[in-house]
Amino acid sequence: MIVLGVDPGIAITGYGVVESAGDRLVAVDYGCFVTSPDAPVCERLRVIYDDTKGLVNRYSPDAIAVERLFFCRNTTTAMTVGEARGAVLVAAALSGAPVHEYTPMQVKQAVTGYGKADKRQVQAMVKALLGLEVPPSPDDVADALAVAVACIHTVQTIARLESCTGIRPVVAP
Amino acid sequence: MIVLGVDPGIAITGYGVVESAGDRLVAVDYGCFVTSPDAPVCERLRVIYDDTKGLVNRYSPDAIAVERLFFCRNTTTAMTVGEARGAVLVAAALSGAPVHEYTPMQVKQAVTGYGKADKRQVQAMVKALLGLEVPPSPDDVADALAVAVACIHTVQTIARLESCTGIRPVVAP
Repeated sequence: MIVLGVDPGIAITGYGVVESAGDRLVAVDYGCFVTSPDAPVCERLRVIYDDTKGLVNRYSPDAIAVERLFFCRNTTTAMTVGEARGAVLVAAALSGAPVHEYTPMQVKQAVTGYGKADKRQVQAMVKALLGLEVPPSPDDVADALAVAVACIHTVQTIARLESCTGIRPVVAP
Repeated sequence: MIVLGVDPGIAITGYGVVESAGDRLVAVDYGCFVTSPDAPVCERLRVIYDDTKGLVNRYSPDAIAVERLFFCRNTTTAMTVGEARGAVLVAAALSGAPVHEYTPMQVKQAVTGYGKADKRQVQAMVKALLGLEVPPSPDDVADALAVAVACIHTVQTIARLESCTGIRPVVAP
């Protein structure tokens, strides 16, 4: 299973492509798209859309996982994050792959087993799980890899529960 | 000159296509896209993107005008409006047409001559300027027509100032 994880932002959008092979997880590709603060907003969003679409075309992910924020510093930041999320989610929806969204708490829970883990704990766990030599940075990249790992763990847990019980667990969309 | 005006929202996105022929303004088409609250967010955004793209393909506007909000009730609303704006702005940027954004105050100023006009004054002026028999509704449609009219008025004013003075006025992007 290949999952594309994305942490959208107008200035920096982190991405991580993670493949699960049996019990192993491999970071196939990761990095970030950076947009110029001097460009008009619609051009910055076009870059985010184009780059997300480029990753989808290159890796044909089985699922796309996007971080969903409920809290932002203020309405201006929330609007800007929303715009970047809009560009990513349109590219994701057009790909035809299932799109999953996870809150930071769900990501932390799925990656570290503790929903209130701090940033460094998440980064250390992502580094260990993916066998990376150094912790991924900036934070946007680490968060994108974490959301991809969270998606794989969640899908695997649901499959395991279903195969043990014959009941499909109820999960939030 | 044909302008597509858009007032983005996740549930209802208003649109208005306005053509200027000499001193006359004609409402070529107007209405709204409605998305189902039961659909996943990425599907709702895909509908907004597809429908905006459909209008662009149909009318080949010379410019696209989008309402830009600075104030929202709370961060959740701001995030949601931002997502819808992201979907519209990506479709607009990909069209290649110039994209202009106007705040509600700029729209009111350009349509009624008074930046603090109330909603009913704007609707009445849009109805009169476009020679409509009834005020456009819902508000999202009226706002989309108003932002298209504002774009045409602004472009015409700039052209008039430039032809009178030989100086290109400095305007916000």
